[in-house]
Formats: sequence, structure tokens, C-alpha cells
Amino acid sequence: MTAPIAIIMGSQSDWDTMRHAAETLDALGVVADTRIVSAHRTPDRLFAFAKGAKAEGYKVIIAGAGGAAHLPGMAAALTELPVFGVPVESRTLKGVDSLYSIVQMPAGIPVGTLAIGKAGAINAALLAAAVLALSDPALSGRLAAWRKAQTDAVAERPEDKA
Amino acid sequence: MTAPIAIIMGSQSDWDTMRHAAETLDALGVVADTRIVSAHRTPDRLFAFAKGAKAEGYKVIIAGAGGAAHLPGMAAALTELPVFGVPVESRTLKGVDSLYSIVQMPAGIPVGTLAIGKAGAINAALLAAAVLALSDPALSGRLAAWRKAQTDAVAERPEDKA
Amino acid sequence: MTAPIAIIMGSQSDWDTMRHAAETLDALGVVADTRIVSAHRTPDRLFAFAKGAKAEGYKVIIAGAGGAAHLPGMAAALTELPVFGVPVESRTLKGVDSLYSIVQMPAGIPVGTLAIGKAGAINAALLAAAVLALSDPALSGRLAAWRKAQTDAVAERPEDKA
Amino acid sequence: MTAPIAIIMGSQSDWDTMRHAAETLDALGVVADTRIVSAHRTPDRLFAFAKGAKAEGYKVIIAGAGGAAHLPGMAAALTELPVFGVPVESRTLKGVDSLYSIVQMPAGIPVGTLAIGKAGAINAALLAAAVLALSDPALSGRLAAWRKAQTDAVAERPEDKA
Amino acid sequence: MTAPIAIIMGSQSDWDTMRHAAETLDALGVVADTRIVSAHRTPDRLFAFAKGAKAEGYKVIIAGAGGAAHLPGMAAALTELPVFGVPVESRTLKGVDSLYSIVQMPAGIPVGTLAIGKAGAINAALLAAAVLALSDPALSGRLAAWRKAQTDAVAERPEDKA
Amino acid sequence: MTAPIAIIMGSQSDWDTMRHAAETLDALGVVADTRIVSAHRTPDRLFAFAKGAKAEGYKVIIAGAGGAAHLPGMAAALTELPVFGVPVESRTLKGVDSLYSIVQMPAGIPVGTLAIGKAGAINAALLAAAVLALSDPALSGRLAAWRKAQTDAVAERPEDKA
Amino acid sequence: MTAPIAIIMGSQSDWDTMRHAAETLDALGVVADTRIVSAHRTPDRLFAFAKGAKAEGYKVIIAGAGGAAHLPGMAAALTELPVFGVPVESRTLKGVDSLYSIVQMPAGIPVGTLAIGKAGAINAALLAAAVLALSDPALSGRLAAWRKAQTDAVAERPEDKA
Amino acid sequence: MTAPIAIIMGSQSDWDTMRHAAETLDALGVVADTRIVSAHRTPDRLFAFAKGAKAEGYKVIIAGAGGAAHLPGMAAALTELPVFGVPVESRTLKGVDSLYSIVQMPAGIPVGTLAIGKAGAINAALLAAAVLALSDPALSGRLAAWRKAQTDAVAERPEDKA
Repeated sequence: MTAPIAIIMGSQSDWDTMRHAAETLDALGVVADTRIVSAHRTPDRLFAFAKGAKAEGYKVIIAGAGGAAHLPGMAAALTELPVFGVPVESRTLKGVDSLYSIVQMPAGIPVGTLAIGKAGAINAALLAAAVLALSDPALSGRLAAWRKAQTDAVAERPEDKA
Repeated sequence: MTAPIAIIMGSQSDWDTMRHAAETLDALGVVADTRIVSAHRTPDRLFAFAKGAKAEGYKVIIAGAGGAAHLPGMAAALTELPVFGVPVESRTLKGVDSLYSIVQMPAGIPVGTLAIGKAGAINAALLAAAVLALSDPALSGRLAAWRKAQTDAVAERPEDKA
Repeated sequence: MTAPIAIIMGSQSDWDTMRHAAETLDALGVVADTRIVSAHRTPDRLFAFAKGAKAEGYKVIIAGAGGAAHLPGMAAALTELPVFGVPVESRTLKGVDSLYSIVQMPAGIPVGTLAIGKAGAINAALLAAAVLALSDPALSGRLAAWRKAQTDAVAERPEDKA
Repeated sequence: MTAPIAIIMGSQSDWDTMRHAAETLDALGVVADTRIVSAHRTPDRLFAFAKGAKAEGYKVIIAGAGGAAHLPGMAAALTELPVFGVPVESRTLKGVDSLYSIVQMPAGIPVGTLAIGKAGAINAALLAAAVLALSDPALSGRLAAWRKAQTDAVAERPEDKA
Repeated sequence: MTAPIAIIMGSQSDWDTMRHAAETLDALGVVADTRIVSAHRTPDRLFAFAKGAKAEGYKVIIAGAGGAAHLPGMAAALTELPVFGVPVESRTLKGVDSLYSIVQMPAGIPVGTLAIGKAGAINAALLAAAVLALSDPALSGRLAAWRKAQTDAVAERPEDKA
Repeated sequence: MTAPIAIIMGSQSDWDTMRHAAETLDALGVVADTRIVSAHRTPDRLFAFAKGAKAEGYKVIIAGAGGAAHLPGMAAALTELPVFGVPVESRTLKGVDSLYSIVQMPAGIPVGTLAIGKAGAINAALLAAAVLALSDPALSGRLAAWRKAQTDAVAERPEDKA
Repeated sequence: MTAPIAIIMGSQSDWDTMRHAAETLDALGVVADTRIVSAHRTPDRLFAFAKGAKAEGYKVIIAGAGGAAHLPGMAAALTELPVFGVPVESRTLKGVDSLYSIVQMPAGIPVGTLAIGKAGAINAALLAAAVLALSDPALSGRLAAWRKAQTDAVAERPEDKA
Repeated sequence: MTAPIAIIMGSQSDWDTMRHAAETLDALGVVADTRIVSAHRTPDRLFAFAKGAKAEGYKVIIAGAGGAAHLPGMAAALTELPVFGVPVESRTLKGVDSLYSIVQMPAGIPVGTLAIGKAGAINAALLAAAVLALSDPALSGRLAAWRKAQTDAVAERPEDKA
């Protein structure tokens, strides 16, 4: 059976960021496939993957990329599934290039974009889970519990840790 | 019966942008409520709305705001529903402030962010529809048709319109 | 008796910055409470705290946050007390996101914003003390002495320290 | 009797922005003096004004300037009164230069900075009023009423105004 | 016979910019095809066009796009021909998004990027002509003449034109 | 016999970046000369080099520079050969200054600009090779093989490398 | 007799900005030559002019340019005279590109850079006059008078001009 | 006898940058005074120094500062001597705040601004020397020799230094 969520990324180096999406989904009991799909170096793989994603049974695609980050937007152009994009921090421009390339999609092809880097990867997973939870009460319960635990974990006062 | 989608915005002036979300959903046959909910001027309304949104029956919240655009992120903090944010173009910083305020959410509370301005409003509607379409085959068909019509409308060659 | 100043911050990690506000107030003989209040992870705590701050006896709120830094602005939306905001340096955007999210508040709800990072935390304390000093001559004297000592500490010529 | 608040600005052209501070204070029943004080073209006036402001009886200084906006920071260097700065929109850099010049003060001399342009001018007035209201119950009541009226004025739904 | 140069653009609205590339090539006596190829709305057309461009006989591709401008980079991913990219000015971010999306390509797939807007379109044409001129002495001569005429047209002193 | 490609750079410190252009050309079997030509410190060398480049037999010039990076644009002003520019990462502005100085050329003198830093240097080499390949079938084959090897090297799934 | 100051600019369109330098010098009784010298379109004219400027008798060069504004820096590379640069406002990047290209010169070749646009042109003239005034007491007196008149012209209070 | 050049800086921490100005002047045989003058912490010292600088016999002032860098502009407001400003690299904004605060002076009060950081400090010294050289043939000769040595030191080809 296909996992409901595909996590794709442009290169091996994006995994340091995108692993946080995988780990978050795992913590929520959501199965995800992880794939390297480079829009620039493997455009045929991108076409095959994105065009077939719906038929494969995926519900949501999470795509991370850096620099001229075309992967999320091209995936969105090739599927009707919801696509969430994670701008991976780039060396010189610190992910501003990644962010603009992902979020500034033209009218007609949406990519729901998260924060630059690790926070964005975690949040892409949470957002994908929230989408699945709309028709999965058990997941909805796990998500609520995760959110409550997060709230409960916030201390009342800062601790000195020097 | 509650509409599946709520479109909220920080002020009347955001409506020029957010109406494009409403019109796009309308074209897809998706019912949406539109509300003014100001995080800053009506925080109680925000709390009441966002905390009650799931129980009201909404499935997805689209939130547009400009400047120090806190509405999408605060709504996301108060509900487990998926929230999609639209950065409204601001006068001096052209929406870069809106974009950063919406997209740079910390790990734990996601907002799927779209492009600045009108394109973002249209795409928030399309993304929300894509989410609903996961469990609504008729909508899925209408969305596919909308996408196909969009593709078919692209001319082969540019026309001189001077 | 309640301290006249509350220093709130979005997370434990902000303490490295915000401790400088606490230390500066301490040096001026001003008592301050320090609290973690996350706009996103503990919105109920934020509402309870900010709505009750005036009744608790606080005079000024200093709020530090990073990224999509909603804490200062939401606190300001929920109280009539003066709120001073400190943009905490963020990893990728270096606090520009924090700065825009805090300073670009819409007309109607002000946040007096200080510099990004440590300098801003120190200055938030000095500004809060200046506000309290308007009706506290003893504090006014201590603040004047602090300012004079700062001026006297500036050497005439740079020293080689290699 | 001296007004409790001084509104100073770098040039006549800043008045289009800063008049909104004056009008907001007027609506709250707070008297304000308005002065042109150019840090660059009238440095002696700046020194005389800022050094004498406290003895004159002012409680708060609101300073607006654009470009290399030195007025708020230099006023703050010359007085212990709270200074709130308004970055006036500049022609080419849209006020980003004004914002950075005002907000990025070094540790030791604070300027509470508001948003770029008209919203910042209004909010500087509201923040100054909030400071005065700490020891003026009547003003506190008027400020609360102003805030309530602002909240009540937010419509439930956007209106089509085309 | 196929034209040696293809000018592609993401939408009809890019033609106002890209027509300057067409006109410049025309002035140099170089034949060019102009096509609308949207990476997002017509990905199949993009694949077919770019994969077949070399076999069609094209030598150089000029691609203009705005916002999350994926067209030049995706074309470059699908052909070994030289691709020159023109960032079209976008409404809110003024083409900075377009520029970053086009120029920040990862190692392995180059796009030679020109200036934002009209100047970039003209220069893409000149650069493409310079490439063709390497093996076309007649064109090389026309290009040299064009350059000389450009130099000769620069007046010695500015004229008052008020 | 002259090499078909000249790689010029503004200073010895640019070599850490530009060596990647040289190595990439070497891997493709394309001979290149490498030269230090400083627009600012050796303007006469720049004039002599760029004016003579075509007569020397060069086909393409690759120019790397950082900061107020005038080298690519001035070389382009002095030759009709195609010039590709590489923005070298600068210390404080991270290469945004280099990028703007290289890419924002006025209409009439084109520089095909690549990404900031190492990726840009590699891609300048690939783009120059693509230009030469238009009239060199053997090189075209080697370039195709290089591209295919690049595609084949992309793994299907990310590996954990912790 | 040669004028002591040369005002050069990259194109006729820069004259709208640079005329303010000429008018300011004229008001100070300083003679200036105005020339169009395009670094990109007339590099030979640039070389001849800048290399000969000192022998011609010029004391200071004021250079205005926009976009990839190479003129001030290249002039500085070709003369030992002081060069003051004026970043002309560009269409899309509003002169940020011009500013970075002019101000971020490498160690060894200085350009004293003024503000973007009209203010920068006026100030380049004032700075050039201040340099000449070091050895011209009469000019020093006129400059002091100009400065005093400027100070005297600042009104005490803003006027309503609506 | 007074040194012809004063190097002032806002704090001890700026010395790491500004020492390069001092060392460059020393290498050119130009005597300079170095002073810490903080616009914000020692405004009286600033006023006394800048107002008296001309009478003291200084010819040129070099001023370095970071963040909301008011020192160069305020010095320029208080003297008719030429002032050259060096934006010191700041922690979070990397000197962009320093640059804008120094370069964006309003019409009427010029600051000739150099590059951010060490290169700017060196170039401020070179520019000040060029100004002095206008009436000092011996210095003019030393400056020409320095420039020639700089040119001669540029190697023909990059060396591998790994």
C-alpha cells in the first residue's frame, strides 16, 4: 500500500533539513515515502513521479529544495494533489532565494510554503497531517495530543543554563 | 450548514486582494464564508472564531493580512485545521513584511503560505479546493476541469496588443 | 507586590537575548518578572497574561520574539499598557523577519520596537525605566547616573588590543 | 504650561506623515507641540531642544525622520525622556533606510520605533498616550474608549465597494 | 527552415518585455521564433518544446519569466542548448524574485541571466547574437556595426530637455 | 594555439571560486586560459586583454569578480565575444553586491550571469562549453555524456549519513 | 582654463539627476564641465577622459550612473583624483543596484559615494566644493554662507499646506 | 601641529576596522589623529570635536560607525570640512544598516561613503590622501607610487595555494 505522503527533495544535501519532516510524520504515525527528485538533474523522474503521484495513491506531496528551488512548483504544475514547499537554506542568500522561488508562484498553480529550513520541514509535516486528519479521526486525535504536549512543554519561566 | 472554507482577513482594505480567493472558490463550486477578523483590533473575535472553527464545521481556513500580518499565524495557533496564509501587499515594504510575518512561523504551528497579493489569494483558494477534493470526487473533477481549461487557454504565441 | 515590568519571551531560546533586559533593569534597581509566553504554542497563556497584565499591576511589558514574532504585537492588542518589542536574531534571516513582524504593526496597536538582539534587549530595559522614571524621581536619578557612567566610560582614544 | 508631548520632525516634508501623530493625540485630548528640528541642517537647535526638553516639562518626545534619519537617535542621546521614532517613507528605499537608521541604535540609547509612515505616526501618538496614561486616569479612560471604539468599528464581513 | 533562436515566455503579459528581444534580433537580421510556454500552466508543452529544441534546429533559447520564474531553468534542464534567462519585472517584488529564481541555478544546469526587464531582454538578444556570430562572419559584422552605431550615438554632453 | 576560453578574475582570492570553472572545463576536455585581470587595479591590462581577446582567438570569456564587480561588464564593453559573469561571494553582503553589479548591465552590453559562488563557476564553464558545442560535435557528445552521468548519479532515496 | 570639477554621467537619462550637481556648483560659484561618458558604450572615451583628467586640470570628478553603475569606479581606477559617485535611481531595483555597484569598491580604489538620486547629486557638489574650499578661502566663505542660509531657512514649525 | 586628518569612530570595537585607515595613512606618510567619539554616548564630545575641527587645523575627517551609524552624518552637520564615512560591519544586518545610515544623507549635508568594513577603511584613507594631494605634490607622488606598486603587485595568473 502506498504511503499517503511523499517527501521529495532536490538533492541528498537537502536531507539534513527534510529528515525533520520525516521524523515529525513518524511521530504522528503517518507513513511517508522519501525520494530524491531533482527538477534540474532528473526532469524525467520529476515528470514521471509528479504525474503519477495521484494514481499511486499519494494524498499530499512535501517538496524541499534550495536556491532556484523549482521542485515544489514544478511538482504542483504536474499534479492536482496539494503540494507543500520547504525552502532549504542556501549558502549565500540564506534561503531567501529558495523562499522567493517557491512562494511566488503565479496564479493557477499553488504551493503552500513553509518557513526556511528545519522549522519549515517540521511544519510541512504538521500541515500535511492536518490535511489527512480531516478524514482520519484517529490521526486527528494524535495530532491534537501532539499539539497539547507541545503546549504543556512550554515552561513558565526561562531557566538559566549557563 | 456551514461552508467548508472560511476566508478571513484583517481589514476591509484586504478585501480587494481576498475577493480573488472568494471568486475562485465560487468558480469551483465551493462555498466559503468571508469574515473580517483583525488579530490586533479584534483579538477576542479572533480567539472565538479560530477556537470554534473546527466545531463550526469548517475544514480549511484561508487568512489574508498585511504588514505585521499576525492573523494567519494566530489562527493556526488556535485551531488544528489547515490554515493557508495570503500576504497582502503593503504600502511601503510591498508585502515583504507580510510575507515574512506569515511564512516564518516557528516549528509547531504551520501556515501554508502563498504568493504576495492577488496571485496568492487565487492560489489559496485552489490549494484549499485541492485539500477538499481529496475526499470529494465531484470537486476533484471540477478542479481537474479548471486546471485543464487553464492549460488550454494558454495561446501558442504572444499577440501584439499595442 | 507585582513587579512594575514584565519581560516575556516566546521560548527558552530567547532568554540568551532577553536576559540582557533583565540584567539592565536589575542594574537600575527595577524589579521585573520574566515569563515564557508563546503566542503560537501557548495562546491561552498569552491571552490570560496580557488581558490581566494591567490589573496585575504591571506598568510596562517588554516582549522578545524571533521569526514570525507575533508575541509583542498580540500582547499589545490585548492590553493598553505600553509594549516594547525586541526582535530576536533568527537563524536564516538574521532577525529581519523578527524586526518586520514586530515593527510593522497597523495603525491602532503600537509596539515600540528596539534593535535586533542584545542591544535591543538592553535598550528595551532602558526605555521601560525611562517611562517609569517619569513618576519616580529616585529611579530618574539612578537612570541619570547610569547614563553619566556610560558617557564617562568612553575612552578618548582606541587602544590596540592585539 | 508646556505640552506633555513634543512632536519633532526633520523637515516640512515630514509633516504629511507626522500630522497623523498630532491628530491622534488631539483626538485623545493630549496637547502636543510640533517643531521642525533638523539634525543635519539645524544641529544647534537639536542640541538646545533635546537637552532642554526635560526641564521644559515634556514627558515624551515623538521624532519623525526619513533617509539617514538621525533625529530620533540624536534626541535620545541628549535627553533621558522616552523617545519614540517614526521612520518616514523615503523616495527610493521606501523607508527601509529610515527604519534601519532609527531602530538599530546601539546599546545604551533607546528609541522605541514604530512602523514606517502614517501607521507609525498614529501609533507613536498612541504609545505616548499609553505612557502618559500610566499616571493620568482620565487619559487612561479616554484611551480605553478610543481602543473600544476602534474594536467596535470593525465590520463583521467585508463589503463590496466596487 | 527553423529559426536559430527561440524566444519563449511564461505568459502573454511577458511579451511587453520580451518583444524587445525579438526587435533587437530583427534589427540584427537574426530570425527568431516567439512562443508562449508556461512551465506551470503548460508543463507538457515545456517538455515537448525543450526536449525537441535541439532536433528542431534551434541554437539558442531565450526564456523570459516573472515571479517564481521556473521557465528558463526548466528549459535548461531539458536541453543542452545554451539558455539565456530574462527576469521579468514582477508587481510586488520588482523582479528580485524573478532574478533569484533564474540566476541561482544549482551546479550542473546553467542559465545565463540578464538584467531585470527591458534591458535584459535586449541584452539576451545581443548575447544570443554574439553566440551565433562565432560561426557566422556576416552576423559578426552586423553585430560590430550595431555596437559601433551604439557608441557613436552617445552625445558628448547632456542636453537640457525640460 | 590559443585556448578557446579565457577565465579571468579580479584577484587571487577569486581563484577559490573560479577554479571550479577551470576544473569543469578540464573535465569536458576544453582548454582554458586563466588570468588575473583586475578592472580596478590593472585597468590597462583589462583594456589590452579584452580588446585583443577576439584577435587572440578566444571564443568565450568567463569573468569572476566580487563586491563592486566591474570586471565582467567592462570586459563585455570591450569585446564582442560572449561574456559570462560569475558573482564571487563577498564578505559582508554575501555576493548580492557582486550579483547586482554583474547582472544589472544596461541595454547594449550583455553579460550572461550565473549563480553566486562555486555553482556559478561550474555553470559558467558548462554554458561556455554549450556555446562551443554548437559547432563542435565531439564536444557536444562529451557534454551530453557529462549531463547523462550527472543524471545517473542522483540516488533514488536520501541516505542517512549521520 | 579648465573647470576644476568634471561632472560625468553614463547617459542622457542621468542628467535629470545630475543637473542638481551642476546647479549646486553653479550656486556656489564653482565652474564645472558636464560630460556623458558611458563606461559600457564608450569605454575608449572613459579611458581617455579619466586618464587625462588630472593633466587637464580637473581637481575632482563627480560621476553619476545607474544599474550596474561602473562609471565612478572605473574612473577612479584610471585617475588619482578624488572621485565622488552618485547612484542614480534605477527602474526596478530603485538604485540599490547602483548604490552597491558604486560603494562596494575593493580596497585600493576609493569612490566617495553619496545618497541615491537627487540628494546625492546635490551632496556630491557640496562635497566637491568642500574639497576645493580647503585651498580656496573665498569658496570657503561662500560655502559657509550657503550652509548658514540653509540652516536659517528651516522653519520653526511645520505649516499646513493642504 | 595638528594632524591634517582625524579618524573618529563610535566605539573601541570599531578600531579593528578603522585601524586599516590609520595604517594606510601611515604608509602614505600622512599623520592622523585617532579618537573615539560616540554620537550617542558622548554627544557633547561630538559637538565640541566637530565644531572645533576646522579651527584645530584638520582638513579631512574620516568617521567609522556601525548600526544606526549617526557619527559621520552628525560630524558633517557640524563642520564644513569634507567627511568620509566608513560603515562598520554590524552583527545581524552585516553593515547594511550602517551603510544606509551613513550614505542616505539628505540634500545639504554630504558624507562621502566608502565600502562596508576593512576595504572601506583603507579607501577612506586613500580618498583623504587624494584630497590632501591636490595641494601637496610630495604626497601626490607618494600616492602615485602607492598606486603603481598596487598595480605591479597583481600577478598574471592565479596560483594554486592548496
